[in-house]
Amino acid sequence: MAAPVNPPRGMRDFLPADKARREHALGTIRRVFTAHGFDEIETPVVEEYDRLHSGLGGDNEKMAFNILRRKLTPEAIVAAADNQTELTDLGLRFDLTVPLARFYATHRAELPPVFRSIQIAPVWRGERPQQGRYRQFVQCDIDIIGESSNLAETELIIATLGALSELGISGCSVRINDRRLLIGMLESLGFPADEHAQVLITIDKLDKIGQQGVVAELRDRGVDATAVDALSAFFSRPQTMEFNTFGERAIRKALPLGADDAVVAELDALGKAVAAATSLQGQPADPFANPLVFDPFLVRGMGYYTGAIFEIAHPDLGYSLGGGGRYDGMIGRFLGQDVPAVGFSIGFERIVDLIELPAGAAADAVVLVHDRDVPPVTLVALKAKLVAQGRRVRLEARVKNLKALLDRVSAAGFGAFAFVSADSTLESLEFKALD
Amino acid sequence: MAAPVNPPRGMRDFLPADKARREHALGTIRRVFTAHGFDEIETPVVEEYDRLHSGLGGDNEKMAFNILRRKLTPEAIVAAADNQTELTDLGLRFDLTVPLARFYATHRAELPPVFRSIQIAPVWRGERPQQGRYRQFVQCDIDIIGESSNLAETELIIATLGALSELGISGCSVRINDRRLLIGMLESLGFPADEHAQVLITIDKLDKIGQQGVVAELRDRGVDATAVDALSAFFSRPQTMEFNTFGERAIRKALPLGADDAVVAELDALGKAVAAATSLQGQPADPFANPLVFDPFLVRGMGYYTGAIFEIAHPDLGYSLGGGGRYDGMIGRFLGQDVPAVGFSIGFERIVDLIELPAGAAADAVVLVHDRDVPPVTLVALKAKLVAQGRRVRLEARVKNLKALLDRVSAAGFGAFAFVSADSTLESLEFKALD
Repeated sequence: MAAPVNPPRGMRDFLPADKARREHALGTIRRVFTAHGFDEIETPVVEEYDRLHSGLGGDNEKMAFNILRRKLTPEAIVAAADNQTELTDLGLRFDLTVPLARFYATHRAELPPVFRSIQIAPVWRGERPQQGRYRQFVQCDIDIIGESSNLAETELIIATLGALSELGISGCSVRINDRRLLIGMLESLGFPADEHAQVLITIDKLDKIGQQGVVAELRDRGVDATAVDALSAFFSRPQTMEFNTFGERAIRKALPLGADDAVVAELDALGKAVAAATSLQGQPADPFANPLVFDPFLVRGMGYYTGAIFEIAHPDLGYSLGGGGRYDGMIGRFLGQDVPAVGFSIGFERIVDLIELPAGAAADAVVLVHDRDVPPVTLVALKAKLVAQGRRVRLEARVKNLKALLDRVSAAGFGAFAFVSADSTLESLEFKALD
Repeated sequence: MAAPVNPPRGMRDFLPADKARREHALGTIRRVFTAHGFDEIETPVVEEYDRLHSGLGGDNEKMAFNILRRKLTPEAIVAAADNQTELTDLGLRFDLTVPLARFYATHRAELPPVFRSIQIAPVWRGERPQQGRYRQFVQCDIDIIGESSNLAETELIIATLGALSELGISGCSVRINDRRLLIGMLESLGFPADEHAQVLITIDKLDKIGQQGVVAELRDRGVDATAVDALSAFFSRPQTMEFNTFGERAIRKALPLGADDAVVAELDALGKAVAAATSLQGQPADPFANPLVFDPFLVRGMGYYTGAIFEIAHPDLGYSLGGGGRYDGMIGRFLGQDVPAVGFSIGFERIVDLIELPAGAAADAVVLVHDRDVPPVTLVALKAKLVAQGRRVRLEARVKNLKALLDRVSAAGFGAFAFVSADSTLESLEFKALD
């Protein structure tokens, strides 16, 4: 027996049933985003090494797969021993945001003033493979470039919830915060400005290590002790959660200190607009609920966010289904000028297993079971006639264990079968249902 | 001004109009292949270096983009100076056939005895970029694995012509030959067996260098002179072309020497079956014509073909739109046992520019032109209502040059617009057609 053969480490093959589910989900997402006025684009899977490593990708830059430069001389290889970047000129993208910034710089003149993009595509990261983490995975991103008002955030959140709803994933909420509120909170608690970045990195681990873990880590790191004490007291203050409400009152209650009035008013308006639209989309199920939930400790890792930040939470899942935020100033990096931008990314690998294929297609999918002596001309003519009627048709040579064959095609999604003999005609076929 | 920013050499971005055309075409191909009973699968874009370079990829192996190994020490780099393959462990696939062979070896036990696969995916080759040649391009492959009779060839050809027809590309013919007839012809002309491979490489250039060029190149290469003379005489014999016919008589006429009876009978049956099915699909336009055309000099480059080989020809184009053939013995290489297999690949980049997007979608795509003072909540609620009605909706802030705005959204595929003010309701919107 040959040795086992597998796809590369951390990467996956998709068999027909999985592939069909994925394509169904991707098609649904594409359709909903398009209905919401977004335009799909595509970039090559590789970008130039220097662009991928310009600092926009954060920690993901370290996980990039790089392409070996072609036609390297032995001398060039030896010379690159202490600088491996000389061995590479291209890399596989690790996200869809760096390519979007590059795309926007290339095509600015051909794009509308407010550009709403869809990118549905794989990215690659050399992470240690583990349950639910893959080295090739699909992201579904929408971004609005050129709109500085929070109409952009509003459209992104509504479109994303619309896509999830269309996929049958309901009950999602959107945890939301704003980088400016985070900074205001840190200032109010007394953290020096030069410690903010470090403190946010620790607060970002709140879900994993808990409030006491955050306080302990900040103490270990030697962050301003008085400020850490203030944070600890802030964590432990009594809170009355108000379920299903969002707005200025709820934000003030959750974040009683350092909240800039203008930012709170923006979030309040955003919440009203999202609620108005999603109630029309039938989300959430409770028409009086708002899908937004203010979370004063939501950080989101990437340092490039400048305004609102958000994540999709599902009531039954301990992880986020996607997220995004405003990152003015970043998309224009390659263009050489600031451009306002907001993005929202669905973590496709996290949602694809939650959805089911719609039933009903099977009835149109039929199997023609034929003896080996039926001439091909008969088989393919019958097949062509059925395909022309809108059926999906599979030919199967009859085998001894007919039950095993029928079980297999039934499991593969076919809904009926008929026997074909040399003198069969379309009219003479007798279809029997498979279950 | 910033320096121009471009995608990597030989690779392309797709703007919304191009991307929409591509997705429409890919969706059509996927739908037709699925109707014909094929199942779509997906493999990672990278495969292990050793598998990509196992000899199955022919000349394409040399054009592979390889991934730089991660965590290389300076010593390992120096040691690899004279053996660059030590610097890489993975590579981007250069075709979809090598990954299919690997996939089949991995999943044999989970697949049906006759497996009809669809692969629609990009591949990468480090070719010198030129008009119509790209370093990343999409292939649409169907393969049938496990069927040794030419029912497999028949189904592949019918499905491929069906997909092209559904895309509005009609009038295509399929040039067909058989590797066994080629070998028989070479034997009859007197070429020694050890020169066959070399002679086929030259004959494969017939379209480019002509009959005299082929004869001259064979003479230059010092191939058996008597056999070359015989080939030259064979080239220059008078031929009566019989248009729109295919079958035993036409094959015998085109190849009067060395044609194995059994192979000719197989092709004859194949032609009858294809004609019966494609006439039902409405192809070719002339119901008495056969889309197959026998071409005794069709070689197709890859050395792994063992039986029928074919290429799609379009009456208006000087290049092939795709091709394939039987390659028994190859797909089982990684599995360690022979498995019959036939494949047909559509050159997607060659057909995508030939097709047009169906009209009619524009009427449902509407633009809401709003003043800046209309609250987002009004805009997104109106938008949500229209989306729920099945419309595609784009918001556009009113600008001074309204005509330019309307021209732009009309060119982008929107069919109507309405002005929105702060007190607009769904009922009060007055849509005007865009042209």
